[in-house]
Amino acid sequence: MIIDKLINQIEQKQNPACVGLDPGADLADLTDSAGLADLVDLTTKDGIIAFNSAIIEAIYDIVPAVKPQIAFYERLGPHGLEAYAETVKLAKAKGLIVIGDIKRGDIASTAQAYADAHLGPSPFEVDFATINPYLGRDSAQPFLDNCRKYDKGLFVLVKTSNAGSADFQDLRLACGNPLYKVVGDVVEEWGLDLVGRNGYSAVGAVVGATHPEILKKMRQSLPRTFFLVPGFGAQGGTVSDIAEAFDLQGKGAVINSSRGIIAAYKNEKYKGLDFAQAAREAALEMRNELRSIL
Amino acid sequence: MIIDKLINQIEQKQNPACVGLDPGADLADLTDSAGLADLVDLTTKDGIIAFNSAIIEAIYDIVPAVKPQIAFYERLGPHGLEAYAETVKLAKAKGLIVIGDIKRGDIASTAQAYADAHLGPSPFEVDFATINPYLGRDSAQPFLDNCRKYDKGLFVLVKTSNAGSADFQDLRLACGNPLYKVVGDVVEEWGLDLVGRNGYSAVGAVVGATHPEILKKMRQSLPRTFFLVPGFGAQGGTVSDIAEAFDLQGKGAVINSSRGIIAAYKNEKYKGLDFAQAAREAALEMRNELRSIL
Repeated sequence: MIIDKLINQIEQKQNPACVGLDPGADLADLTDSAGLADLVDLTTKDGIIAFNSAIIEAIYDIVPAVKPQIAFYERLGPHGLEAYAETVKLAKAKGLIVIGDIKRGDIASTAQAYADAHLGPSPFEVDFATINPYLGRDSAQPFLDNCRKYDKGLFVLVKTSNAGSADFQDLRLACGNPLYKVVGDVVEEWGLDLVGRNGYSAVGAVVGATHPEILKKMRQSLPRTFFLVPGFGAQGGTVSDIAEAFDLQGKGAVINSSRGIIAAYKNEKYKGLDFAQAAREAALEMRNELRSIL
Repeated sequence: MIIDKLINQIEQKQNPACVGLDPGADLADLTDSAGLADLVDLTTKDGIIAFNSAIIEAIYDIVPAVKPQIAFYERLGPHGLEAYAETVKLAKAKGLIVIGDIKRGDIASTAQAYADAHLGPSPFEVDFATINPYLGRDSAQPFLDNCRKYDKGLFVLVKTSNAGSADFQDLRLACGNPLYKVVGDVVEEWGLDLVGRNGYSAVGAVVGATHPEILKKMRQSLPRTFFLVPGFGAQGGTVSDIAEAFDLQGKGAVINSSRGIIAAYKNEKYKGLDFAQAAREAALEMRNELRSIL
């Protein structure tokens, strides 16, 4: 099962990290000193592919997974999405687990169309996709069906890393629990018949690095649910914040960093390195930090 | 303001309807009797464009708005999204208001990338986009900013038409209200400084046709919020169900039908007509039904 493949990759590389491949506007100022300046124009398909290809080449042997954020490709229209498809292909060819950060959510045949677009044979086919739970159980069903049919996995938004996540996710329910707790319990339930040999199911949850106490409680109450933890690094989550995401065996979570790795060339610390070299150094540093708590 | 343009179009055509342009798998069986069988293969870019073009040509003079559901294009990869971009262009060229049914939702620079992809100068630029509120206020901010900057509008998911919408949207909060009520109140607030000359804001809400009592209560409690009402026709919502979506002047909502119009050729009633002719007849019938309650 794909969740076991992810866990295996993490164990082999001794690194529960994921690198976000987010070619955002703030990277468009790659200077000559960061290398490839004339080659990489991140507002074009070829520029994105060249950038991602160099990052993948620099980190694939030390990192188990990558997470392309489709919004940064979608903003460039169909050509951007060709770059997304090509990025997914390049990452898979290097043996990386690919988490498509799509946060889709819809109903009935529309949900099925999204599931087929991302968790089935298609140009956008990834190993895991993120989805939004607001539309309820039936909206997740086509994704769950495709997980079974094509050996895929999900990460369902439970408690996101942004400050605004408090607005609705933290609302106290009449039952006494916050909304995210109820959503988390449903996610655990969705995965019960998709549990792999490591005890985790193919239906994971997104819980932000910026909420260490919530990570701790969720880790205890959702024993079968693997966590995708965004918000590490650039968003403020530290290594002690995310320690609670792991179980006693040091399993149970993959920690994502996007800007912290792919924009490492902007960091004084990596001065003189091109963006790919800087990404590798930052990924090694992140790996060492994560190893220190496991 | 775009919301006034939508209201004007509805008044000019005396028809508060929207046609969903959803080239789903169930339409792939267009038979010769439905016309254009050899021309229309809905698994190809050209097929989708030919299909949508014929539908748009058949309904643009009697319907104010269309709502392409991006999932049905996304499932075909980058080529499908070229068909989406082309569909948006064709609809705009005929003076139709275009509602991009994208249900995106993300944070920070990612939310900005989605906002720029759909509510800014880009191949996917539409007049209105649907968004998912689960990630909170800051996740909506880039979309609200683009509404202001580019004169665009939103429809935020509040209470969706599917049965599973009860799972989270109906959860009773400690304050006594269901979640969708709190989300609806926030949506009304988001629109307060984007109110047009008809008294409705550019920030609308999605409330399903399958919940008439909720439509009634929401219409009363959200006086500035225009409703996009899915679930009419194929999903079971009747004309009496959606009557409550309108204010006393017969304004305040646009009712979407997808399958009921674009798959009308499958209906015995329209036997002998090709799919575009059948779509026009079904759209005229829907218009007359809606007029009967306004």
